[in-house]
Amino acid sequence: MTMPLLFDLLGVFFFGVSGSLLAARRGFDIVGSLLLAGLTGIGGGIVRDVILGVVPTAFENPYYFIPPTLAALLVYFVAPGVQRLKRPLLVFDAAGLALFCTAGTIKALEAGMNPFAATLLGVTTAVGGGLLRDVVANKTPSIFDPRDLYAVPAMLGAGLMAGLWVLGVRGWVWELAVAAVVFILRVLSLKFRWRVPKAVGSWHRDAELH
Amino acid sequence: MTMPLLFDLLGVFFFGVSGSLLAARRGFDIVGSLLLAGLTGIGGGIVRDVILGVVPTAFENPYYFIPPTLAALLVYFVAPGVQRLKRPLLVFDAAGLALFCTAGTIKALEAGMNPFAATLLGVTTAVGGGLLRDVVANKTPSIFDPRDLYAVPAMLGAGLMAGLWVLGVRGWVWELAVAAVVFILRVLSLKFRWRVPKAVGSWHRDAELH
Amino acid sequence: MTMPLLFDLLGVFFFGVSGSLLAARRGFDIVGSLLLAGLTGIGGGIVRDVILGVVPTAFENPYYFIPPTLAALLVYFVAPGVQRLKRPLLVFDAAGLALFCTAGTIKALEAGMNPFAATLLGVTTAVGGGLLRDVVANKTPSIFDPRDLYAVPAMLGAGLMAGLWVLGVRGWVWELAVAAVVFILRVLSLKFRWRVPKAVGSWHRDAELH
Repeated sequence: MTMPLLFDLLGVFFFGVSGSLLAARRGFDIVGSLLLAGLTGIGGGIVRDVILGVVPTAFENPYYFIPPTLAALLVYFVAPGVQRLKRPLLVFDAAGLALFCTAGTIKALEAGMNPFAATLLGVTTAVGGGLLRDVVANKTPSIFDPRDLYAVPAMLGAGLMAGLWVLGVRGWVWELAVAAVVFILRVLSLKFRWRVPKAVGSWHRDAELH
Repeated sequence: MTMPLLFDLLGVFFFGVSGSLLAARRGFDIVGSLLLAGLTGIGGGIVRDVILGVVPTAFENPYYFIPPTLAALLVYFVAPGVQRLKRPLLVFDAAGLALFCTAGTIKALEAGMNPFAATLLGVTTAVGGGLLRDVVANKTPSIFDPRDLYAVPAMLGAGLMAGLWVLGVRGWVWELAVAAVVFILRVLSLKFRWRVPKAVGSWHRDAELH
Repeated sequence: MTMPLLFDLLGVFFFGVSGSLLAARRGFDIVGSLLLAGLTGIGGGIVRDVILGVVPTAFENPYYFIPPTLAALLVYFVAPGVQRLKRPLLVFDAAGLALFCTAGTIKALEAGMNPFAATLLGVTTAVGGGLLRDVVANKTPSIFDPRDLYAVPAMLGAGLMAGLWVLGVRGWVWELAVAAVVFILRVLSLKFRWRVPKAVGSWHRDAELH
């Protein structure tokens, strides 16, 4: 097993845990937990690969079935403990976000996408699984929660990764460095509750749009 | 028209009826009924074929437009009757589930997928249309209803189909046999209200997770 | 920049504005507004191209990133004004619907699809982005609103486009003519509040289905 595969499987596991936790919160059964863990963990990569026109990685390698299974079992046997571990979980999720956004951008660039499209596909890889998780569980996606800056670190990281590629700066060291930047930005955004403005300007702060 | 095509069209029709019935319940119009019938009937196969990288069957053969049309008309003209026929409908749906999960697994194996991926794609074919139906109608997918064992027979059937394939046991007789097993398991699960455990363990039975 | 590309970008912009307006109504932030504008604008074309098995247009051409950005900025800076412009917006949306349904049908026919499949893909191109917008924002899709005839003009236009193609009547003049028909039908349907029957027949008008 190579290092990139190991990192990828770790990301699938971290995202999978968030899927199984949502399944637990919504009262789904253990099978729903497994399905939601799998969709959250491999969904973003599937969307990326379908758009790239290649067979999704997760379908070429049976290893990808292990992390969602572990995630569902973990939540089944130690769910309240997992819930109490909210902070570590957010850190793990940030690691998944960081690894997926850089790996997704690089895969798109290697497939011949232009830097803009590759950035978008990197972001899709990073946030797509969580988006599918929430859509399928009939919940407003947490990516749209204005109190949390979830997508921004992934957008900056994917854009930076594509920019370095255009400048000819390549290699897994740089990939890890950008992932580290995304990870740190994400953790700082959680710690300091960074936000971006709402979809409408500030002169509208007191009115509710309907 | 070959037998497999006829079976497939029957499955599309059965699933389509469930889509049109949901459209009726939600107060959609006849066009929404037709669109939801189509999505439910052919959605699972489309997802499978897009992942396999082939043109979806339903787009290669205009026959696939007939079953959703019939389903929407049936619900329009005899909806209360259709609703009263809840038990036969569940039996038809079980037949669709059985046919789609074996046919989907075989198509994935023939396309060169490994047995794990083929099992997952068989399940996707069987439950994907119903999942899309509920997601698009903004409803928590019935596949996640812990009072019903919907996905489990499809998972067992797809796994069994892939296992037989690995052992070299192939042919449409075996395909029909596995479909029969899935059908019987599904009907028994409805009759005896089989369930699987919730996403969290039993020591947590009295607490609500939030 | 060619005329068809310009029309396409205009369609992406019009649909993008509807995505950003929904983001504003739901209280999403500016990043969510951008993501929802992008998904609404290019989502229908992505689904069409993924089914056709080609790289989505929006990923081949960085120009497609401009309209959603403009849409999100427009809504951010002048949202209440945009909201007051409800009528012009519906007209712009009708233009997007008309352009996307004819262009989508033609692209599918040129890719070798049969006329039925091409009609369905034309409709998918036209209504897919709005459907994804509503599904992702956890809202019952407005395409299913029985008080509005949204999908019907697109279905008629895509069918007409495919019929002309079969008859050998081709060329961009005809494409624009069909788009004009769709546009006029859509605007008339809004003006005269045209509707189609509900998913269940009229003998059921007083009863609620559950």
